[in-house]
Amino acid sequence: MKSEEEPETSVWPRKTWTFLSEVRRRSPLIQCITNFVSMDLMANTLLSAGASPAMIHSSDEIPDFTPHVHALCINIGTLSGDWFPAMKLAAELSSKLGKPWVLDPVAVGASRFRLNACLELLKLKPAVIRGNGSEIIALSKASMESTKGVDSSHESIDALESAKALAEATGAIVAVSGAIDIVTDGKRVVGANNGVAMMQRITATGCSVTALIAAFVSVDQLHALEATASALSVFGVAGEMGMSNANGPASLRMHMIDSLYGLDEASVLSRVNITSL
Amino acid sequence: MKSEEEPETSVWPRKTWTFLSEVRRRSPLIQCITNFVSMDLMANTLLSAGASPAMIHSSDEIPDFTPHVHALCINIGTLSGDWFPAMKLAAELSSKLGKPWVLDPVAVGASRFRLNACLELLKLKPAVIRGNGSEIIALSKASMESTKGVDSSHESIDALESAKALAEATGAIVAVSGAIDIVTDGKRVVGANNGVAMMQRITATGCSVTALIAAFVSVDQLHALEATASALSVFGVAGEMGMSNANGPASLRMHMIDSLYGLDEASVLSRVNITSL
Amino acid sequence: MKSEEEPETSVWPRKTWTFLSEVRRRSPLIQCITNFVSMDLMANTLLSAGASPAMIHSSDEIPDFTPHVHALCINIGTLSGDWFPAMKLAAELSSKLGKPWVLDPVAVGASRFRLNACLELLKLKPAVIRGNGSEIIALSKASMESTKGVDSSHESIDALESAKALAEATGAIVAVSGAIDIVTDGKRVVGANNGVAMMQRITATGCSVTALIAAFVSVDQLHALEATASALSVFGVAGEMGMSNANGPASLRMHMIDSLYGLDEASVLSRVNITSL
Repeated sequence: MKSEEEPETSVWPRKTWTFLSEVRRRSPLIQCITNFVSMDLMANTLLSAGASPAMIHSSDEIPDFTPHVHALCINIGTLSGDWFPAMKLAAELSSKLGKPWVLDPVAVGASRFRLNACLELLKLKPAVIRGNGSEIIALSKASMESTKGVDSSHESIDALESAKALAEATGAIVAVSGAIDIVTDGKRVVGANNGVAMMQRITATGCSVTALIAAFVSVDQLHALEATASALSVFGVAGEMGMSNANGPASLRMHMIDSLYGLDEASVLSRVNITSL
Repeated sequence: MKSEEEPETSVWPRKTWTFLSEVRRRSPLIQCITNFVSMDLMANTLLSAGASPAMIHSSDEIPDFTPHVHALCINIGTLSGDWFPAMKLAAELSSKLGKPWVLDPVAVGASRFRLNACLELLKLKPAVIRGNGSEIIALSKASMESTKGVDSSHESIDALESAKALAEATGAIVAVSGAIDIVTDGKRVVGANNGVAMMQRITATGCSVTALIAAFVSVDQLHALEATASALSVFGVAGEMGMSNANGPASLRMHMIDSLYGLDEASVLSRVNITSL
Repeated sequence: MKSEEEPETSVWPRKTWTFLSEVRRRSPLIQCITNFVSMDLMANTLLSAGASPAMIHSSDEIPDFTPHVHALCINIGTLSGDWFPAMKLAAELSSKLGKPWVLDPVAVGASRFRLNACLELLKLKPAVIRGNGSEIIALSKASMESTKGVDSSHESIDALESAKALAEATGAIVAVSGAIDIVTDGKRVVGANNGVAMMQRITATGCSVTALIAAFVSVDQLHALEATASALSVFGVAGEMGMSNANGPASLRMHMIDSLYGLDEASVLSRVNITSL
């Protein structure tokens, strides 16, 4: 699926370095309403990238707090009925104030409860949706059904087609994590080819890269597709560099965060591998 | 208390390797309703052992989700009134569907609230109960009292006797963590002699090994005693191997998880030390 | 601001070593009602220092449990309406029973909700309040206003003056974390000059040192200022020692906890740097 070597392959590493540099320079405040498992790694990922995390989830303070953030990350990993209203409130406020927000529909296919929650959140206009293949397929399919009725002819089980359809239906950039990460706005498709397989054996790496996407989008909201691909690649590069010192998932986690913190221009320019698909 | 060298000492390492191999091969889905402190290490322990963790605790989705899991782990470490109904619902559903579930009665003696919660959960037929000596003694005593009345003549303060009594009263396998881990079905007693003392200076190691027990039991439900002893030993071996590179509790935690991930047949066969008591 | 070399510079390291030794000897039970992000690092910090952490937050068991603890740590990092009553209940009970409790007013200036919560908690007589400069300034200002009315002439934006005013208004020891940590009872001011800048790139280091303060205060409640300065310095020394092996924030976190665990008398005596200001 990868296209011939294009001029853009030299352009992307430069773009990616610009995004990372801007995040480090501005230290954007990223509000995360996320699952309990991911909070530690997500906060440390944002801190290591130069952003400023804020895990604030109470409806009682979202009206005061959310107007001051630069982007919002919503993750339904440990969703419960008492947290959902805050997610909606924060997403609604972000959209109203023109701040980007990013959705991570963890295990959206696991229950009707999750699916309904995500369908409600989709109405609040996320800038980016990032999930794995199954999640994007489940969400895309349900989104089509809720739009076109259950008898929708849309029966695709292909992640790329699902991602494109979801992007078109919602107006969001959609990212699908996998061996190659795919990012699409419904028309353009790019692939981010960084990362190592062992990252999947560390809990919350997917959640954490979604928060990193929020940080990257916050510094250049008009180029959300580029920001998303860049964040995925930067996290992947950190994983690749961490892997060279790792003996297993726990040491990889540590070296990955250290690498993200220390990532320099030369490493970004030589390692980032993003291509049109 | 350890018996003479028995033939089974060479049989156990082989059994243990079979359990670990099966977990890696099948990657069982383990639902964990656990305390906030343990979520990160528990998920990473399961991932490193080859299992698939799911921290899902909302009553709104348990009816959809729990039927798809291979085992359930319930841990009351940060118990609160709003989480308890979900624990009961998931445990009840698991028992009804013939799926094994494992109880970790953290600090059960610390309050009447915890004790009552555990007594209610015991009615829902856990396959395994794992705690430290004080927890098992407190739970066993309360269980006897609730069965036989407060004037019960049962006054044992010995962990082994308490464990046997609790196993007989509940039908569960009972494991007591300590210098030697003890596992009993009320009649048979085996000791798992692996691990290092510094593991107690890492938060959530006890919680995490309980989740590992759930994974091991899920691949051979009919041999829950063997699965429990094997999981305790595997975790202990990972700790022993991690200890050789550790400079303190935090590096031990990292090397322990790395070791669990990389554990090979030779290490299991040479290190697992389980004996009849 | 630092005064001339004083005799006390040789007295403080000795005091600090006595505090750490007592914590290790007595292993005080420290109840933590804290934010979700910090639970893992906070529990591991306490364990590595020799204390015994208990993350117990349900109002249903505080009446049973809190009477048995040696100190309480309350942190509002992920405050929500359903957790606040338990914070008040535990703080009230601690004060009533003469047990010290410590407040970490995380992001108190971020919302009226947080500010009101902290103002209510201040009435329950914390022994120590620890925050960063902005937090202490925000809390001190609000505290003055709530006492003297909104038209208060108090307009200081200096952290030290704010800390002194807050200490006088509340009777608590107030600690301000920064390049130099400042500790005051409103009259005396000491500076703890240990630590490294990279600790701020690890989530929950501030939360964790607040819990360590609770542990130190618990072993000598009558010298809360000394206990607070000592805890800040010990954590800073662990960071300095960890830094010598660190390649970034994640490896610093690991080496810092290992160093805290292994900290010996010689390192404490040679490194602790506390001075009168």
